[in-house]
This record gives sequence, C-alpha cells and structure tokens, in this order.
Amino acid sequence: MEHIPFPSWPDVAADLIAVATGRTPAQTVIKGGKWVNVHTREVLDNHDIAITHGRIACVVPDAGYCSGPNTEVIEAKGRYMIPGLCDAHMHIESGMLTPAEFARAVIPHGTTSMFTDPHEIANVLGLEGVRMMHDEALLQPVNIFTQMPSCAPSAPGMETTGFEISPEDVAEAMGWPGIVGLGEMMNFPGVSNADPKMLAEIAATQAAGKTVGGHYASPDLGPAFAGYVAGGPADDHEGTCEADAIARMRQGMRAMIRLGSAWYDVQSQITAITEKGLDSRNMILCTDDCHSGTLVNEGHMNRVVRHAIDCGCDPLVALQMATINTATHFGLEREIGSLTPGRRADVILTSDLKTLPVEYVIARGKTVAVNGEIAVDCPHYNWPETARQTVNMARDLTANDFGIDAPKGANAVTANVIGVVENQAPTKALQFELPVTEGRVQATGEVCQIALVERHQATGGVVNAFVSGFGYEGQMAMASTVAHDSHHMIVVGTDADNMAMAANRLREVGGGITVFKDGTELALVDLPIAGLMSDSPARDVAAKAEAMMDAMRACGCTLNNAYMQHSLLALVVIPELRISDLGLVDVRTFEFKPVIETHT
Amino acid sequence: MEHIPFPSWPDVAADLIAVATGRTPAQTVIKGGKWVNVHTREVLDNHDIAITHGRIACVVPDAGYCSGPNTEVIEAKGRYMIPGLCDAHMHIESGMLTPAEFARAVIPHGTTSMFTDPHEIANVLGLEGVRMMHDEALLQPVNIFTQMPSCAPSAPGMETTGFEISPEDVAEAMGWPGIVGLGEMMNFPGVSNADPKMLAEIAATQAAGKTVGGHYASPDLGPAFAGYVAGGPADDHEGTCEADAIARMRQGMRAMIRLGSAWYDVQSQITAITEKGLDSRNMILCTDDCHSGTLVNEGHMNRVVRHAIDCGCDPLVALQMATINTATHFGLEREIGSLTPGRRADVILTSDLKTLPVEYVIARGKTVAVNGEIAVDCPHYNWPETARQTVNMARDLTANDFGIDAPKGANAVTANVIGVVENQAPTKALQFELPVTEGRVQATGEVCQIALVERHQATGGVVNAFVSGFGYEGQMAMASTVAHDSHHMIVVGTDADNMAMAANRLREVGGGITVFKDGTELALVDLPIAGLMSDSPARDVAAKAEAMMDAMRACGCTLNNAYMQHSLLALVVIPELRISDLGLVDVRTFEFKPVIETHT
Repeated sequence: MEHIPFPSWPDVAADLIAVATGRTPAQTVIKGGKWVNVHTREVLDNHDIAITHGRIACVVPDAGYCSGPNTEVIEAKGRYMIPGLCDAHMHIESGMLTPAEFARAVIPHGTTSMFTDPHEIANVLGLEGVRMMHDEALLQPVNIFTQMPSCAPSAPGMETTGFEISPEDVAEAMGWPGIVGLGEMMNFPGVSNADPKMLAEIAATQAAGKTVGGHYASPDLGPAFAGYVAGGPADDHEGTCEADAIARMRQGMRAMIRLGSAWYDVQSQITAITEKGLDSRNMILCTDDCHSGTLVNEGHMNRVVRHAIDCGCDPLVALQMATINTATHFGLEREIGSLTPGRRADVILTSDLKTLPVEYVIARGKTVAVNGEIAVDCPHYNWPETARQTVNMARDLTANDFGIDAPKGANAVTANVIGVVENQAPTKALQFELPVTEGRVQATGEVCQIALVERHQATGGVVNAFVSGFGYEGQMAMASTVAHDSHHMIVVGTDADNMAMAANRLREVGGGITVFKDGTELALVDLPIAGLMSDSPARDVAAKAEAMMDAMRACGCTLNNAYMQHSLLALVVIPELRISDLGLVDVRTFEFKPVIETHT
Repeated sequence: MEHIPFPSWPDVAADLIAVATGRTPAQTVIKGGKWVNVHTREVLDNHDIAITHGRIACVVPDAGYCSGPNTEVIEAKGRYMIPGLCDAHMHIESGMLTPAEFARAVIPHGTTSMFTDPHEIANVLGLEGVRMMHDEALLQPVNIFTQMPSCAPSAPGMETTGFEISPEDVAEAMGWPGIVGLGEMMNFPGVSNADPKMLAEIAATQAAGKTVGGHYASPDLGPAFAGYVAGGPADDHEGTCEADAIARMRQGMRAMIRLGSAWYDVQSQITAITEKGLDSRNMILCTDDCHSGTLVNEGHMNRVVRHAIDCGCDPLVALQMATINTATHFGLEREIGSLTPGRRADVILTSDLKTLPVEYVIARGKTVAVNGEIAVDCPHYNWPETARQTVNMARDLTANDFGIDAPKGANAVTANVIGVVENQAPTKALQFELPVTEGRVQATGEVCQIALVERHQATGGVVNAFVSGFGYEGQMAMASTVAHDSHHMIVVGTDADNMAMAANRLREVGGGITVFKDGTELALVDLPIAGLMSDSPARDVAAKAEAMMDAMRACGCTLNNAYMQHSLLALVVIPELRISDLGLVDVRTFEFKPVIETHT
C-alpha cells in the first residue's frame, strides 16, 4: 500500500480561498457548534466550520454562503467543537499494537495527532524498523508524527541491541516525510558530559529545524541539569514534582506532564499552573506509555485532559495543553492544534467541556468515529518477514541451558539477586544464601531464576541469574520478548524445564509473552511483529494481556503491575541491579557483577 | 567586508555544556540580577547569567562555579535582566537610514532583533537591492532578520517600478541565510481572489518552512477577510481597532499591533488582552515605520513597550509581546526572545520594569550600549555604484517639462486634483476650476502642481497633475525620491522653474528630499543609497529632516506630517486619487483619470 501524501496548505490554498469567499461550495460543513478557540482561549457560540480537501477553509458564524447542494453537513447541534487531541510524546509499542491498530484504538477517544518515538523497534530492527513504523504511521487517517529514536542502545557497553542508532541514521531520518524530531534523549549523563555521539544526533536534528525531545530522569536540578538544558533538548516528560515542571519551563523547555497506564505525573506538576499561576503555554500533556487495556477501558488523551481538569485545571487551559501548545512546540501550529483556516480539519464534538465525552470525531475532514465506534479504515503496512521473524535463536533450549553451576565443592553460595519492589521501577541489589544440589545453585523461597536469552544474533547466549519478589510458587516460567530496552528475551521461572518450554514457545510464535505452569501454557500474548507488537485489534490484545496477568496470578504472583516489572528487568539504565545479554549489571556503578558472590 | 556567521547552538553546544556544568569558565557572567522569565511570566531575584560564544550557557542563582579568572563580570546590581527587544515588523528605509545606521540608532534603546521588510529598495533595485540590505543586516552586532518583499509593484498595471519581484525571486531568497519569511502580503484583494502569483509567493515561503507576513488593510471582516486568512498569511499589523485584533487572533493569526512614528494602533487593540482577557500569546508589538527623529528623540521598541504598559498592560505581558511571542511566531523561540540556555545572549539591564530605562545592552554576549551610548561598531556594507546612482534621468529638466497644456482655445478648465487631508493617508478626489494663461493651465489658490518624474529607466517621463492642501505660497518646489511604493520622484510646487531646479538637484545628489524657494535651496536631505537612505548617523539625518520640515513650513505648509503626505502621493493602493508614472490613478476604481476633465 502506497502512502498518499496529505495535500499541503499551499497545495489547496486556492480552493480554501474559494470556499472561504463563497465562490465554491465546501465539501463539508460542521454546523451550529460552540467554537472552542484555543488561540484566544474562549468559547464562541453558534459557529460553522467549512472544510475542503481535509482542511479548514473558514470558521464563521454562518457558513451558509459556503454551502452547496453537495456539501456534506454535520450537525453540531450546539455541542462544543474542539480540536482533535494531540499526544505529545508516546511509544506505540507500549500498547503492544502496530501503529494501525493503535490508531484504531485511540481515534474513538478523539486523539488525532500523535508524536511517537518507536524506540523499542529501533533496538530490534534499527533504522529499518523505525522506517516501517514511520511508513505505517503515514498510512493512517490521523496524524502520526515520528520522533527518530536517539538512544539505541540505551546503555552502550552494558548490553547488545539488535541494532544501534548512529548520528548518521538520525541525519538520514530527518529527511523522511513523517519525522518531526529526535526522540527522547535518554542518555542525560551523556549530554551533560558532552558525549560527541549524543551531541551529533542533537545537532543533526537542530540542523533540520526539528525538535529535540528530552528525558532527564533525575531529581538533580543543579549543574547536571543545567548542562543537559545547554545541550539542546527542548522538552522533558520525566518530571515528577512541581519543582521539576517549573525548572524545565523556566529554562525554556516545555514541561510535558504525563498520565500513562502506569505514569501519574500530572497531578503533582500541574499545580505550577493551577496554584503558582505560571504561564501555561509551556506545559503539555502526554501519555508516554499506554497499555492496550487502558486504551480499551479508559481512553487515551481524553483521559489525560479529563484528569487535568479533575486536578483543578481550567478546561480551556487543559485543552490548550493537548492541542495548540503541542502544535506550537513541534513547529506545527499552522498545521494542527486549532480550529482555524488552513489547518487539518481535526475536530471533536462533545457536549461537555469538563467530562469531555467524545461523541463525534472528524480527522482531515472525514468522520472517523461516532459515539466511540471507529468509522474509518486504518490500513496495515505490509510487514516483511524480517519484521515478523525476530526471535533469532540458534536452537531450542533445554533445561540444561538454565542451570547455574555452583563453584566446585560448594554446598551453598551467596548470590546477587535482583530484588523487585512493588510499584517502583528501580530494583534492589539483594544478596541471598542459596543451597547447592548436584553442583547447581537452587533458587528457593522467594528467589527464583531469571534468564536473559539472546534473540537478535542467534548467538545461543543465555545469561542466568536470580530474582526475588514475584512470589512465584510451584513449577512455572514466564517468558517475554518485550524486554526493555534491548528486547532480548527475559525468562523468569521456578523450574528449568518450564523455562525452556516458555522460551521455545516464544521462538515458535515469533515473540510475545507466555506463562507456563506444570508444563502447560496458561496464557500467550503473541506479538509477531518484532516480538513487540500484534497487528490484532486492541480489544483482542487487551484480552490476551489480561489472561496473561491472570496466569501470573495463578502462579502465585500478587505484585501490582507484575508484567511491567518483568519487562523492565533488563533495563540497564535504572538502578540498582539488572540483567543483560552481557551479564548482571550494577546500574549504580555501571559495572558487571558476578551472579555468585561467594561460596562456602 | 565578509559576513562571519554567528555560530549556531550545535556549533558551540559542547562549550555551553562545559560552562553550565562548571568544567570550563564562562567568557562573561552577568551577576546578581532579577531574572525576567518570559516563559513562565515571572521575575526571579538574584540570578546570574553565564555566557560563552555569545550564547547563554546557563541561568542559575549563583554562577560562581562557572566563573574563572578571565571571566568578564557585568554587575547587574539588582537590576532587572530582560531579553533584548524584538521589532516584529518594520521597514528600515522608513528611518531614511541604512541597516547599519538604523542598528546604531536603536541598539541603545535595547532593540536587539528586528524583522525587516526592505520593500522600498525592492521597488528601486529589485532582488539585488534586497540582497544588499540583507547582507548589511548580517554584518550587524544585533539580529536583523529579513522578510522577503512580496509586492513590487504594489499595484501591477498602475505603475512601473524599478524592478518587480516574482515568485522565483521569493523562492531564491528563501535560501539566503538571513531570510526569515515573506514580507507583508499587501495585495490582499489578490489573495482573496486567489491570484496565482501571490499564492505562488506564499507557497514558496511555506515550502521553506518560513513565516508569511500579512497586511490586510480593510475593515471588512467578512468573506474577503476569511479568504485572506485561508490564503496563508500568518500575521497582520494593519488592524486599528479591538475587533480587528480579536478577529485576527481567533483566526489563528498573530495580531501585530504597532506604534510607529505615525502609527498609533496599540491603545485601541491591546484592550483585547487588558479588558477582554484573551490569551496574550498571539499579540505582538512592532513599529512598522519609524523616522530617524523618533529614533533619536523618543526611542524604538522600548517606546512601544512603555506605551503598552501605559495602556494598562501588565509589564511582563508587554515584554512577552516584544520578546518570546515574536520569537515563537518566527520559529526562533530557541534562538532569541528569552534569557535561557542556548539562546543568543541578548540582555537589557533596567532598574524599572514600568518606565523601562535601558541602562545597559548586551547583544550576543557583548556590551553594545551603556546608558544610551552605543559601544560597538555597526559595519557598513560596501554599497556599489548601482545602489548609489539610482536617479536615472535622461537629462536635466526645464520649466517647460512642468507645463500643463490647456486644450486649444480654453480659457479655463475643470481639473481633477489630488486633495491632501491632514492626518489621513487617504486623499480626496477633488475638482477645481483653473484658469488658462498662454495656453497653459495655472495652479492657483490652494492648488499647486505635482509631477511624477520617472527615475528608474531614464525614460524622460514626467507626469504632471494638480494637488491641493499643502498650503504652499510664493515661488517654491519640493522634490523627493522617497515616493511610495515605486519611488520615482515626486515634485510638488507652485512654480515650474523651482520644480525643475528641485528635480535636477536630486538628480545631482543621487536622490533625497529638497525644498526650493525663490530659486534657492532651503533644505536638503541627501539619500544617496537608492534615493531612499543615508549612511550618515541617525542624528544627522534627523537634523536634516527637521530642517526640511522647517523649510516646508517656510513655504507656507502648515500640515501635520506634511513630508509623509508628500511621500505617499504616488501610493496607488490607497484611495482616492494618486499619481504614478502612468498617469493620474483613481484608486477607488483602479482606473486612470484625465488631469483636465472638461474645459470651457
């Protein structure tokens, strides 16, 4: 399927003028709505929007003069007309959905513009994978702008990714039609240390006149932060408290505040506007990461705007934070983000500005959702076999691959164990005394085994270690090819046979998440594309994910967000202890740590 | 003299980071000021600004850690540190000064960024002239961004300019380093009628990702305005009342409100913010046109900001309208307009935010003015002879050239007369009975003669007509090569001999303004560059202009702003009656009119 570029404003300017002056009838008129004007921050009763070629020709009190016998009329019936919502920073892969299926899930919620960083697929398939996401994005009936991933690998030297992203890749991508900027610059110590590779990526983006996304995940607002800001990132979504938001805005960055499936950073930061009274133009709402279940059951950017309003934000200000503020930030103010001439006709009709029911969604002038039901096709990209066969293991694994040999003659050992902490991304570096049986260290009690199975280069590599905190009991294993950020395969289990079965099952289906108990698969979320995404509808994926979490509970796991904990165990940029294809990593020191510390 | 490009942010990012993190000392530190933060709209006491390579490295409570023995320290002594002021739309030629001398005049007033449309020189010297202005602009120690003129001629078919600007010229100019967008699209009927040439110029600008300047000089806010907005202009500075400003902002344009030497459009429009409470981010201050006398005696953008504050605008909001709002509009938010890392270090120190005394000005990290005195060189471009010899007349004129023949046998005629109206740009189309002597029509009473002397192609063309309202008495003539927009030569006089002398004098000096009385030159403003500008200091030009106005008064003229009236008499886009090299133009109908209507 070919991407047909949406005509630019100058492409259709003559026709827009003809409609606005009444010389040619509009293709579509939205009649009789309350115009929510995010430029002036006001609501104007009784306005019509005339649309042609998917763009707004004019917004006037009465578009009768721009209407003809073939003009499609959408009756607003006094409802509010608000601009389609923008998600300023997000990862489509977090929904375990392809761009098409993600779009299909969020369009009924009124999201018509997304700024997506396909960071996960970049780790698996490199620039080529980014291009595939970009290309599927451009097929959609809504606006999906791609931020070129900046940090693959996220921790150079500590892990091996499927592919790496170079400054040359960044420079190349800046010429693609759907690229809007650089994805979150996560290597914040690198920027503060003027790492030439990171600065070259930023420079390539700035040279293209595009926006550099930030990610400063540290509470330190001293010189390290000053250095990061001086490096060039233009926004940041990692703030968690009011002081973070204020510091970013004062320094000329935009504070992106997020409400994701597991991020709750709006309430604590929006007070910079609602209580401190700072200028709101530099605050922007986003989701960062949404699971498919959230999309199915709760919403998307409409959920975030509602939440901002619930936090005391004026509804018009909250809407600005999800429309014009975002558009301005990305240099797209004359393209999206407001209901004014020339812009893409992305419009939501809603009968209440506070509860924000999304009753009707128009994107590029076409009706795309009505009362929560999608009304448009979201075309699939023809994903090649290279994207569908990414679980590259040299062979099926056996229980033996998951054995952890004890030092000769040892009866027990002191092992370094990754300690999972409920509701926290950081882990603890723990030590446990573990017994030895037949020369192998035994995971017992609250400790179970974890293995990082190399799946990009078919090296056959398996790194074994220990993890605690999941609460697993009996003979079980859980495996996932969603394993941030390098996305090898993480297998956690109490039993080597089940671990081998789980790993081999993912090899068989091309990636995903599986839970085995007593030699039987309890649940499978198949993610055939890059081992990260499904091209099934969100509802199906959400149901499978729910079944997978049920299966984890059936294995004894009572942790909140247990799957997320599992998928983050290889994220070698968040302290304290993680696993990678190169070994056990102490993220406090960026040094490798032995699995067996001492033995007796 | 070569333009040495100012290093870009990525060029110096590594050094900015090194300073911000304290690894390298700053070149300059501004110490102990009140940080006026135009992003958050707040004032923060006791901050330092560390600067290197002309850019801000960091703004922190104490930059001691970024200082070294060679760091230049500028003591703010508790004063406010505000961003250098931006003039969002202006014509340098209006000051009758070259860019260098204009810069020298306004830097002490705190203007560090100007968005200039060299529309006047475009009419005289075409694209080449624009390039000269652009090149001199880039030599200056402050930021002069050039808007590519869009409308030369301003009224095609009604006049002959020295050169015309084509869409191809616009496309070419978009590649020049100092071009920031398209200059005011004055042909608003053309846009509303989808004139292909105008739309092509807009399209070339949008394709380059640059800003299209608007100029919608009509009170009609109906379909004609809707059509103009749909055509693409992104701002407008022609509004004169609150409703104009509101309409523009609602439609997604930026309302530029101006206080020029003769424009007073701030007070009537700023109420959209101060009284109606609309979001202020889309309102921007500018001057449009400032005479050298205003620059010498009153100020520049500091005068505009002060005036906005006097009109009841919050000082921080007024400052935003002259800094960050402007920067954002032109896509330069990460380059100028705020005191934050990475931006050009353009800083004003002032001890009062309301009266705004400009006590110290820093541009690109260098001290450029102290207490109203310039402290930096403003280099002159080496203007070529083609720019200095633009009064192209085939020969000296004689009294005979200014004779207006009466129809054979007529004793008196009814003449169409341009009626000047005090303090108004529009003229009146009047008719007078005039006597005939020796076959020639005689200007008598309040009527005197006006001649349009062709000076671009040396055609020898002289168009003679009549004008009333100046109040000239005795034997006199006034001539000017500043003759908007085509900038031929306008000669007004009571006597053909004096008219010939005045015209020949301007031929001799290469252009300017001269006043003759009784065969003697009373005053001369020599404008050798394009017949529009002097490369003398503003103070000298202002003194000559003052003397010229004294001379006009000595000839009996009591009109306010009489010189401006003179220079606008060929502006064939403002009703009702004007003169061009092609004849007498009725601007109400865009038709030519005979000078002698009937005779008896």
